[in-house]
Amino acid sequence: MRILFLGDVVGRTGRDGVLAALPVLRERLDPDITVVNGENSAGGFGITMKIADEFFAAGVDVITTGNHVWDQKELVGQIDQQPRLLRPLNYPEGTPGCGFVLLQTRGQRAVLVVNVMCRLFMDALDDPFAGMERVLRAHRLGPGGVSAIIVDVHGEATSEKMIMGHTLDGRASLVVGTHSHVPTADHQILPGGTAYLSDAGMCGDYDSAIGMKKEVAAAKLIRKLPTERLSPAEGPATVCGVYVETDDRTGLALRVEPVRLGGRLSQHLPMRGG
Amino acid sequence: MRILFLGDVVGRTGRDGVLAALPVLRERLDPDITVVNGENSAGGFGITMKIADEFFAAGVDVITTGNHVWDQKELVGQIDQQPRLLRPLNYPEGTPGCGFVLLQTRGQRAVLVVNVMCRLFMDALDDPFAGMERVLRAHRLGPGGVSAIIVDVHGEATSEKMIMGHTLDGRASLVVGTHSHVPTADHQILPGGTAYLSDAGMCGDYDSAIGMKKEVAAAKLIRKLPTERLSPAEGPATVCGVYVETDDRTGLALRVEPVRLGGRLSQHLPMRGG
Amino acid sequence: MRILFLGDVVGRTGRDGVLAALPVLRERLDPDITVVNGENSAGGFGITMKIADEFFAAGVDVITTGNHVWDQKELVGQIDQQPRLLRPLNYPEGTPGCGFVLLQTRGQRAVLVVNVMCRLFMDALDDPFAGMERVLRAHRLGPGGVSAIIVDVHGEATSEKMIMGHTLDGRASLVVGTHSHVPTADHQILPGGTAYLSDAGMCGDYDSAIGMKKEVAAAKLIRKLPTERLSPAEGPATVCGVYVETDDRTGLALRVEPVRLGGRLSQHLPMRGG
Amino acid sequence: MRILFLGDVVGRTGRDGVLAALPVLRERLDPDITVVNGENSAGGFGITMKIADEFFAAGVDVITTGNHVWDQKELVGQIDQQPRLLRPLNYPEGTPGCGFVLLQTRGQRAVLVVNVMCRLFMDALDDPFAGMERVLRAHRLGPGGVSAIIVDVHGEATSEKMIMGHTLDGRASLVVGTHSHVPTADHQILPGGTAYLSDAGMCGDYDSAIGMKKEVAAAKLIRKLPTERLSPAEGPATVCGVYVETDDRTGLALRVEPVRLGGRLSQHLPMRGG
Ligand SMILES: [Fe+2]
Ligand SMILES: [Fe+2]
Ligand SMILES: [Fe+2]
Ligand SMILES: [Fe+2]
Ligand SMILES: [Fe+2]
Ligand SMILES: [Fe+2]
Ligand SMILES: [Fe+2]
Ligand SMILES: [Fe+2]
Repeated sequence: MRILFLGDVVGRTGRDGVLAALPVLRERLDPDITVVNGENSAGGFGITMKIADEFFAAGVDVITTGNHVWDQKELVGQIDQQPRLLRPLNYPEGTPGCGFVLLQTRGQRAVLVVNVMCRLFMDALDDPFAGMERVLRAHRLGPGGVSAIIVDVHGEATSEKMIMGHTLDGRASLVVGTHSHVPTADHQILPGGTAYLSDAGMCGDYDSAIGMKKEVAAAKLIRKLPTERLSPAEGPATVCGVYVETDDRTGLALRVEPVRLGGRLSQHLPMRGG
Repeated sequence: MRILFLGDVVGRTGRDGVLAALPVLRERLDPDITVVNGENSAGGFGITMKIADEFFAAGVDVITTGNHVWDQKELVGQIDQQPRLLRPLNYPEGTPGCGFVLLQTRGQRAVLVVNVMCRLFMDALDDPFAGMERVLRAHRLGPGGVSAIIVDVHGEATSEKMIMGHTLDGRASLVVGTHSHVPTADHQILPGGTAYLSDAGMCGDYDSAIGMKKEVAAAKLIRKLPTERLSPAEGPATVCGVYVETDDRTGLALRVEPVRLGGRLSQHLPMRGG
Repeated sequence: MRILFLGDVVGRTGRDGVLAALPVLRERLDPDITVVNGENSAGGFGITMKIADEFFAAGVDVITTGNHVWDQKELVGQIDQQPRLLRPLNYPEGTPGCGFVLLQTRGQRAVLVVNVMCRLFMDALDDPFAGMERVLRAHRLGPGGVSAIIVDVHGEATSEKMIMGHTLDGRASLVVGTHSHVPTADHQILPGGTAYLSDAGMCGDYDSAIGMKKEVAAAKLIRKLPTERLSPAEGPATVCGVYVETDDRTGLALRVEPVRLGGRLSQHLPMRGG
Repeated sequence: MRILFLGDVVGRTGRDGVLAALPVLRERLDPDITVVNGENSAGGFGITMKIADEFFAAGVDVITTGNHVWDQKELVGQIDQQPRLLRPLNYPEGTPGCGFVLLQTRGQRAVLVVNVMCRLFMDALDDPFAGMERVLRAHRLGPGGVSAIIVDVHGEATSEKMIMGHTLDGRASLVVGTHSHVPTADHQILPGGTAYLSDAGMCGDYDSAIGMKKEVAAAKLIRKLPTERLSPAEGPATVCGVYVETDDRTGLALRVEPVRLGGRLSQHLPMRGG
């Protein structure tokens, strides 16, 4: 199976970048499933159903989120209408929405997409590791189970993300971090066969502070005085993510490569494999 | 000028990796100055004078550190003997050691290396931005000043590192992050001419939790019970860093490329420029 | 019912203070149940079975703990032998020990003691609120249920402790905070009938930094250099805690008063009620 | 000298409480100087010049603040007009306002009031200890210097506040904490003669979450969903603070007692000394 995952989309430039890149990426990579983290797509803060629908219309299969999921408050009452728009798994019981979704791709293959959030330097949620165990008890990768499992680990600390990668190694097709808004270059197939990348990076303007206007962010951090509200930088986005090919029988990864398209960062566009 | 910077060296495998890679990198890149972050080189925790001397003997010009600088306690009484072994600039006044050093390279060119530490999700140090202003008031880049300025920004949050990059843009040759132990792929030349990379990545075994044995780190994080002491993973290291070429007249960057050599990560070895 | 609760016992001076105060407090208050937080009783770090047995021999019924519970590592393998030595409820599933215990006091009255830990500015544990709901579903206060419920909320942030107090108001006899090592003066009976105090305070030397030697603690915080290991201050302890009288029928509080005995702090010794 | 200090005033009920209590307290204690922490007096968030003027008109001499100082943004442009309205000392250089003020009281006695902020679990400001040293180098307590020095240590961690107390012991008349919104009962005269209290407590409704409506605060913390904006609870306030008598010659404390007046908490109103 061919998997395309794109990191946190930031603001209009991020959305424009993703919508422009998707046809190119589809042409080039022909992914069986496309996942995008949309937690910053609405002006940098959260996501609306309208924006989600634009992504779905453009061919995105699943949207993941993170700590910004409820920044657009009306989503709380709407998220249950759209099972392909995920919120992190480990919010308290009773939270609207769901942390995972099971899809059918071409050829009747089942794919599970999970969204989970770390806790180091972040909000105190339920245990992400215990949460993943519960999900993976119900959905096994490989023969008799699902063809692919994709896990978006939304987190700050590289240590916690790497530990999640190792903990799921052999039981997921791809464990990919989001939230830092910077792509990492540590893509690898872990010893058990799971593709891993500490952070997909954002889809946004990299002449910025994690996608937001750099002057405002700098003033806020350095001077510690009130500033105007942070808003997304407006230069061209680099669309960042990761591309993975898996063995449909085992569900494990055969190949993992970064995707970086447009904007200021060095460009990387994988070739589709055999 | 040609600048080689390598990120946090973790344990014996990291040291072995760096010592083996340096001749290759010198042969290939012929750097005018080589800087290594050594804060985890002694069993993952700090650095000793003996290890520092091994790095210097192997051709390293300056060693930077970070929050682990005092993990080997005897360094407190020794660091003042070695001006090319830096501790972060923004420790309280009266702290032994120094946060910057001015060197002469081949051809009588002056290079300033600075080590500064971020504060988000880290210890409460003095203001890193105010500290950098003081250093840069005394040492200007370009005609009449120094030929190159290299800044190791040791920090957790990508936002704070990016803001440091923009704040120094045009006044430093290279601003490179350390501490996350994962290389980022956002190397770029900022609009003002400063080469920037959010994190150099560690020189260590990437089948690990940020360089430490993954089983122990996972048990500590997940089970929250006492474990054996964390110690470095022992597989082959990927030597990670960044290579920059600057214009000797302006001190600004002409080219920036990642370095990833050995071990599990995708390999990248720059070509020396003109 | 008469309830005596004493806060974090710090080191030898804290233990000596508690062992000397208990006969006085028993004589004066004749408590039906005595609970002590022992997480710092072993040299400031954790507790041993031997120290726990000394407390039990001196008339303590239940010992609670907190984030320091495993500082003496051997306790991990021993805690299951002693159901009256609690660890916080909301450690991950599978953690040795238990977060609550049901006792019989004089006159066959059942008392539940619960130990739960907050998360703000602390380690990322399971949800303390969800954990309390599970315990209180199994054990109801009042007619047909238990005669008293005592909850030790081990936490840093006053907001989180107050919210726990209100959340349990009417369902517990006493919600008392520990961990800050400073007694608060906000003892009150909440609108629903639960006695509340944000922090019981430590049983230790108040000429110190939260019970530890002030010079070492100050050097560590201010100079940010390695110091000798923190150890308990050795001046006379103030034994700090809270005394509550409840209505045996409803289990709710009729009276709440602080206890402060010995050492440097202003003294407060309640009179036993009717 | 007689010193009256009142903790964080929260919202309208806190202001009403303070304005009603001041005549009582003046009648009873006849303070030479009255200091109030006003950082939450404007609807729980910051302070306005109008509210400050109401406090001054009611006999308050100095208003201190804390991390909420800029919640009412217009204060940034106004604070320099009012030297008796302080912001914490250790904001970055160039921040409007000042962290200390020198006043003349009755009988030509000079009093220094300082406002400083801690860093543990708080924003990364400049070093509060280094800042205090600078202030105290310019203003010495006792013969030839000022008659009294009052320090408001706005902080979260009890350890940091206690260390500040010990560090200033003998050099200040009173070191009193604010920010936790809960009064502590550890008032004491430290060995060097400085009166100390870890937290003055808030002037606000204690049937609340640190002064804010408890239902909203609980929902926000427990459910982790967007809620209506936090606003102050509206029940009667307990006015909380501390009363100190000093020796005018040495500037050191002779007596320290808590003040708790009105509302739900146990009442304590000191008697004026000799
Ligand atoms: Fe994001
Ligand atoms: Fe995020
Ligand atoms: Fe490091
Ligand atoms: Fe570090
Ligand atoms: Fe404790
Ligand atoms: Fe504790
Ligand atoms: Fe406050
Ligand atoms: Fe505050």
